[in-house]
Amino acid sequence: MSGTLNDEWQNPLRDKLDKRLPRIAGPCAVVIFGVTGDLATKKLMPAIYDLANRGLLPPTFSLIGFARRDWQDEDFGNIVLTAVKAHARTPFRQEVWDRLNEGIRFVQGTFDDADSFARLKETLEKLDAERGTGGNHAFYLSIPPKAFPTVCEQLSTSGLARPDGDRWSRVVIEKPFGHDLESARSLNKVVNSVFPESSVFRIDHYLGKETVQNILALRFANQLFDPIWNAHYVDHVQITMAEDIGLGGRGGYYDGVGAARDVIQNHLTQLLALTAMEEPVSFSPAELQSEKIKVLSATRLAEPLEENTSRGQYTEGWQGGEKVVGLLQEEGFSPTSTTETFAALTLEVDTRRWAGVPFYLRTGKRLGRRVTEIALVFKRAPHLPFDATMTDELGKNALVIRVQPDEGITLRFGSKVPGHAMEVRDVNMDFSYGSAFAEDSPEAYERLILDVLLGEPSLFPVNQEVELSWEILDPALEYWASVDAAGGRPDPYESGGWGPDSATEMLARTGREWRRP
Amino acid sequence: MSGTLNDEWQNPLRDKLDKRLPRIAGPCAVVIFGVTGDLATKKLMPAIYDLANRGLLPPTFSLIGFARRDWQDEDFGNIVLTAVKAHARTPFRQEVWDRLNEGIRFVQGTFDDADSFARLKETLEKLDAERGTGGNHAFYLSIPPKAFPTVCEQLSTSGLARPDGDRWSRVVIEKPFGHDLESARSLNKVVNSVFPESSVFRIDHYLGKETVQNILALRFANQLFDPIWNAHYVDHVQITMAEDIGLGGRGGYYDGVGAARDVIQNHLTQLLALTAMEEPVSFSPAELQSEKIKVLSATRLAEPLEENTSRGQYTEGWQGGEKVVGLLQEEGFSPTSTTETFAALTLEVDTRRWAGVPFYLRTGKRLGRRVTEIALVFKRAPHLPFDATMTDELGKNALVIRVQPDEGITLRFGSKVPGHAMEVRDVNMDFSYGSAFAEDSPEAYERLILDVLLGEPSLFPVNQEVELSWEILDPALEYWASVDAAGGRPDPYESGGWGPDSATEMLARTGREWRRP
Repeated sequence: MSGTLNDEWQNPLRDKLDKRLPRIAGPCAVVIFGVTGDLATKKLMPAIYDLANRGLLPPTFSLIGFARRDWQDEDFGNIVLTAVKAHARTPFRQEVWDRLNEGIRFVQGTFDDADSFARLKETLEKLDAERGTGGNHAFYLSIPPKAFPTVCEQLSTSGLARPDGDRWSRVVIEKPFGHDLESARSLNKVVNSVFPESSVFRIDHYLGKETVQNILALRFANQLFDPIWNAHYVDHVQITMAEDIGLGGRGGYYDGVGAARDVIQNHLTQLLALTAMEEPVSFSPAELQSEKIKVLSATRLAEPLEENTSRGQYTEGWQGGEKVVGLLQEEGFSPTSTTETFAALTLEVDTRRWAGVPFYLRTGKRLGRRVTEIALVFKRAPHLPFDATMTDELGKNALVIRVQPDEGITLRFGSKVPGHAMEVRDVNMDFSYGSAFAEDSPEAYERLILDVLLGEPSLFPVNQEVELSWEILDPALEYWASVDAAGGRPDPYESGGWGPDSATEMLARTGREWRRP
Repeated sequence: MSGTLNDEWQNPLRDKLDKRLPRIAGPCAVVIFGVTGDLATKKLMPAIYDLANRGLLPPTFSLIGFARRDWQDEDFGNIVLTAVKAHARTPFRQEVWDRLNEGIRFVQGTFDDADSFARLKETLEKLDAERGTGGNHAFYLSIPPKAFPTVCEQLSTSGLARPDGDRWSRVVIEKPFGHDLESARSLNKVVNSVFPESSVFRIDHYLGKETVQNILALRFANQLFDPIWNAHYVDHVQITMAEDIGLGGRGGYYDGVGAARDVIQNHLTQLLALTAMEEPVSFSPAELQSEKIKVLSATRLAEPLEENTSRGQYTEGWQGGEKVVGLLQEEGFSPTSTTETFAALTLEVDTRRWAGVPFYLRTGKRLGRRVTEIALVFKRAPHLPFDATMTDELGKNALVIRVQPDEGITLRFGSKVPGHAMEVRDVNMDFSYGSAFAEDSPEAYERLILDVLLGEPSLFPVNQEVELSWEILDPALEYWASVDAAGGRPDPYESGGWGPDSATEMLARTGREWRRP
């Protein structure tokens, strides 16, 4: 062992990051299934190194890769090192790497081979004995969902899933958490048959973002916002996740999934829950989940579906000064696919706070700009004691939580235009997260992996939340499938624009319009 | 006549300033009494030039100086030119000056000499005939208040005060509008015996500031602020006008006046009225005044006075890197004077909206920084579902209207500190008036002089407002006089600080504290 706990405490990066609650993971090992994938290389391995570099991992920490490749520990170590050097956020420090590398192991195997899992078990037990990982193991399933049942079963059979005594065994799952309500239910059933729900950590990396967690601070630490956070004052809410990229290379995975399943079911529904939920008794995981479940139970698609849903496929266009091809011309994508790359839905939240306030969710690829935001758009003041022409350029007030990029908050309101007339025009007031805090924001995966190791489940949706999200989304998916069955197709929209006309009309019907973020 | 109305309309500066409501003063002449004073040279003459330069004055506009000096028109013209070149805000343009200068006249005379006023009348009539000023005359009394009765009487006797037909005659008065309630009443009586109240324009140059007028736009054009603009959410209001300068040279005028009369009675009470008033039916002058009068009628000093008032005199100290002398060592100031250079008061507004919310007003010279602001400080959220230590650095939310300098609005609220804990800390969200608008802000005196010429009284306090302000202030003045009579004195405070301990205690008694703006 090259370091002591005391060494870690004196790490200057760690103090800067988290001076109030110094939480260091206890002894443990992380097993990653799917180490050759993009996620493991770009996010998981770098995040683990960054956590180590910040002094948030115990000196005994061990990392095990599991894959089909014929690698030795050293080979895997080099894979991790390459990933760290390419993608870590904190500076590379040889001594941190050396210590981390001492705990790196590789197990060659396949998911359906019991012997492979026996070897995995052997490796973990050896690490427990040699390095003191304490029998605490997290299994990160960075693998296609169809492999979940097999891996869970193997972990169960090999005795890795349910450890004795106060040791823990946790499983980490990446989206998609199912394909619809039914498949989500059966997936949860399989996982829960092996791991109790309290040991299941579903990653929605949006929930690891500082700005998303700040929704709770903003709403519940302040006196200012709550009084106007309801149907009396809010006209509607817009939750947008826009991407500017297309499907280059990812066509295979995406075909048959689409924007609604890929983004709305998880990220946007979670953002809705945090925006619309009531104040929890405390921020304990159980209380938080209970409020999210409550508000999702009250949430449903607005009817009729043909007026309150919109889906589209990008066509060719110009983006970032370059000509780009349409979805159906993308390599690896079926030219007859009806998979949507844009989806917008009108949701309603049937609670005292929100009844009558539409929540508009939209997401899409190849849109005008990469941006994720939550905008509360307020009603106009009930009366404007101004001459009519003086408020021509006054829109509706808005409070915008900018999730990414340029994280922060914008308040849009009317201000007097300098001059002799009492003319009012919209202006913006800005808060920028980056410039307000000297503290470094942990990357979402750093935060979430550490939470897994600490057994802190606040930021992970539980099975019930996942199923409720599918319950909300399913009618839209079924409606679109019925349209397809009748020979319909998603609406085309030009790359670099803001989605199909049907999305514009969805709001225009009630005299509203989408923000151009 | 060197220009036509059409020429003026094409002036590019004017379009930029006020494109929505192009209001140009009609034919008229302005007479300034007290042309050799600081105000006339630094503010009035430059403002008149700037208005001309922006095309807001008619080509027939004429300016008459009245003073004891033995000047010819040309001499006075040169005085004006010097003042314009030194203090105007818009660029000097010879053709604008030449046209303005054609209408400049000087009348030599004294206030108690009827012949002087006969000559003034003659001059004005000649201008009406020669230049077409239409018999419309504004009399700007930039003179000590004790001369008001004489000048008003002379204007009355000479027939200048009440013109025939639809011609107008207006009088412009600078503060102080009296010395206490009684003197204000008799001053108003004298002025109103000559000029009807609708022809009296009392200048409170603070009301000409864009940020002050923006209070109304902010409150009444938006949906966001009104719901929290009341005693349910506001803990208290702080209205501060801090000066960093001392009394160098102005001792003579200031001795016997003091901070409360000089600033609180007019500027700060008006700011309170705009902050606390109810929504007017419209922004017509009568409706605005009616709401201001209503809220001032409901405003009174909090009791007991010894706990809810504070006054002080600056002592020597350091300011701007320089050692400065105390008030009693200032040249021209009586070393035994009890005139205060700092005053703070607790006011209460007995309305449904504000009952129980203290309004703290303070002003002072030689304070830490030159700043004027209105801060609504909100109550803490009724419940904080956070671990106790996580909100240690969370203060009260505040909405701050920055009147000067750096005009704008700040919202202070709690935000999550980046990191793994749900720690909350205060952050600021800013709106800057200067960077939000390309439009040039008219200087307060420009705005107000133009309003006088247009007969637009919205921004001028009427007699009733002035008397109500004194009614509010009088008990404090009487209380301090009684303390002086018993051998008491204002509390000393160090130059460069934020006032005497008694001001700190005034808030500390209820667990509150002054902002350090």
